[in-house]
Amino acid sequence: MRIADIGERKAIQRIVTHFPDGAHWGIGDDCAAIKIGKQLILVTTDMISEKFHIPSGATGYQVGWFITAVNLSDIAAKAGQPVGMTLALGVPRSYDIEFLEDVARGANRCAEMYKMAIIGGDTKETESLVFAGTAVGVVNQDVFMPRKGARRGDIVCVTGSLGSAGAGLHVLDDQRGNEKEAISKILEITPRIREGMALGSLGGVTSSMDISDGVASCLYQLQTINDVGFRICEKKIPVARYAKKISRGNREMERNWSLYAGGDYELLCTIKKEQVSLAQDYVASVGGILSPIGEVTDGDKILLEIKGEKQVLMNKGFEHFR
Amino acid sequence: MRIADIGERKAIQRIVTHFPDGAHWGIGDDCAAIKIGKQLILVTTDMISEKFHIPSGATGYQVGWFITAVNLSDIAAKAGQPVGMTLALGVPRSYDIEFLEDVARGANRCAEMYKMAIIGGDTKETESLVFAGTAVGVVNQDVFMPRKGARRGDIVCVTGSLGSAGAGLHVLDDQRGNEKEAISKILEITPRIREGMALGSLGGVTSSMDISDGVASCLYQLQTINDVGFRICEKKIPVARYAKKISRGNREMERNWSLYAGGDYELLCTIKKEQVSLAQDYVASVGGILSPIGEVTDGDKILLEIKGEKQVLMNKGFEHFR
Repeated sequence: MRIADIGERKAIQRIVTHFPDGAHWGIGDDCAAIKIGKQLILVTTDMISEKFHIPSGATGYQVGWFITAVNLSDIAAKAGQPVGMTLALGVPRSYDIEFLEDVARGANRCAEMYKMAIIGGDTKETESLVFAGTAVGVVNQDVFMPRKGARRGDIVCVTGSLGSAGAGLHVLDDQRGNEKEAISKILEITPRIREGMALGSLGGVTSSMDISDGVASCLYQLQTINDVGFRICEKKIPVARYAKKISRGNREMERNWSLYAGGDYELLCTIKKEQVSLAQDYVASVGGILSPIGEVTDGDKILLEIKGEKQVLMNKGFEHFR
Repeated sequence: MRIADIGERKAIQRIVTHFPDGAHWGIGDDCAAIKIGKQLILVTTDMISEKFHIPSGATGYQVGWFITAVNLSDIAAKAGQPVGMTLALGVPRSYDIEFLEDVARGANRCAEMYKMAIIGGDTKETESLVFAGTAVGVVNQDVFMPRKGARRGDIVCVTGSLGSAGAGLHVLDDQRGNEKEAISKILEITPRIREGMALGSLGGVTSSMDISDGVASCLYQLQTINDVGFRICEKKIPVARYAKKISRGNREMERNWSLYAGGDYELLCTIKKEQVSLAQDYVASVGGILSPIGEVTDGDKILLEIKGEKQVLMNKGFEHFR
C-alpha cells in the first residue's frame, strides 16, 4: 500500500510498531529522552526537503535557520536546554558551495542565539536538496514536560501568537502581496527555548508539545494521549499581528490560520489552574507571552466556543503525504 | 562555485569554518562529544541516498541495517557504547509502506544486536529516498579514543578484514557474479562496537577512526591531524575471504579493494607498541580480530612496503561529489 494512500500519521503508526515502546516519531513525544544520572538527554530529529518544505525564493541562510529552529522547538517543548545539533545536508552536485555556506551561517546564527552549537554533520550527494537536523538537549528529569499528564480543570495555554505561518503560506499561494515578508514569516521562526525552560522551572505544567502541525492537530494528539477533552475559547486565541494584517479583519481566515495551519512552532501546554498566573510571570520574565485559551475537560470532545456557541473543533491540520 | 568542482572534502572544509572549532563533519573526529559530568555524550550523523549509496536490488531491511550500522561504526571508533539512534526517512509518496516497515525492521535488528534502540525519528516527503541516522553513545572521558594522539613508534592496527565492500562493488560494476551476495557484503556491515569498547578499556590506543572511505584515505587524514608518517606492510593487510574469492588470487585487485575502496567500516587505530599483544587479546576476548599492519613514523610520508620495496601510498579513496 502506497504511503500516499494512508497519510503520514498512519504510516508512522506502522513504522513505530517495529521499535521499542516510546520511540518518539512525531507521535509519542516531541523528543526521545535518555536517562543519564538525574539528567535526561533529549534527542529529536527533523527533516525538510526543497520541494515540499522550502518556499522558492528562500535564502540559504533562512533554510539553515529554519532546520535548526524546528529542531530546537522540540527541545523547548520538553523544557530542555539545547547543547548541540548535527546537520546532515543532502545536496545535488550542481549546487553552489556558496549556498551551503549560507545555510551554515543561518544554522550557526540560530544555534548561537540559543547558546548551543552545531557540533557536527554530514554532506552527501542527493538528487534534490534534503536537510536533516538532530538536536540534543539536557533537562533535569523532574523538570521535563511530557505530553502525557493533562487533567480536567487544567488550563490550556500557548506561547507567543498564532497564524503567522498560515498567513505567510496564504500570501505565497495567492501569489499576491509581499513574498519576501511571507517567506520570512514561514522560515524565520522563534524556537521557544527560554519560555520552555521558564515553564519547566515552574513545575505546574502537566503536558506540553510544540505546535508544528497546528493547534487543532496538537489538541487531538493530546486528547488521545491523555484521555481528556478540551474547551477552547476562540476569542482568547492570540492572533499574530501579521495574520491580522493579511486577513484584513477576516476573522474566519485568522481562525483557520491559528488553529488549522501548521508552522507556528509555539508551545501548547496545560497548566494547573492555580499556577497559570505565576506561569505567565515566569514566561514574561524571559521576554515571552503566555496566553490561556481554554481548559481541559472530562469526556472526549474538543469544543471551540465562538461567541457563546460551542462547536466541535475540526480534526484537521497539516499532514505530510496528503 | 559548484560543489562538483571542489569535491566533498573541500566543500566540508568551507562549511565547517562557519561553526565553532571541533564541529565534526567527517573531518575533525568521527563523533561530536558533549561533556556531562565525567561522561562524554557522543553524537554522529550519516546520510544516504537511494541514487548514490543504495545498490538497486537492496532490500528495505538491508538499507535499514546499513544506515544504523554506519552510524554505530562512528560510535565504535570512539570506544563508545551506543544508547540510541534517531532515523529521518525522506521518502516519495509513491513508495509502499511495506518497504518502510522493512527498513524499520532492519534498523531495529541492528540496534538490538548492539543493545541499543531506535528512539525516534521523522518521516517526510522527498523526491527520492534519503535516510539520515543520528546515533548517540556514551563513553567515559578517559576511555574516549580521539583521532589525534598517534606518536612515532606506535603500531597501526585494523580490526576484522578488508576488501569485502570493494569486491562487492566490483561485482556490481562488472554485472557478473552473484549480485545478491555482493549487495549483502556492501550493506550488511558489522559495526565494531565490541572491539571499540575493548580497545578503549585497554588505555593504550593513541588514535582511532573508522574506515568508511578506505584505509589510504584514513591514513592521510590521521597524517594531517597528527603530523606523523606511516609505514604500512602490504603483506600484513588482512584481506577478506570474499575479496580473495572475487579476485581469484589477483593480489593487485585485493590491494586496491583493501586500501582504496570505501565501505569496510572496520576500525583503524594506533596503539603503543608494548600494548599491541594485550590489545589483540582484548579484542579476541569479544570475538574479534586485531591485525598490526604497520607503524607510525617520523616525517610526513605514508609508505607502502610491497615485497621489501617501498612506494608512496596513493592519496585516493572514496569521495562524494567526485
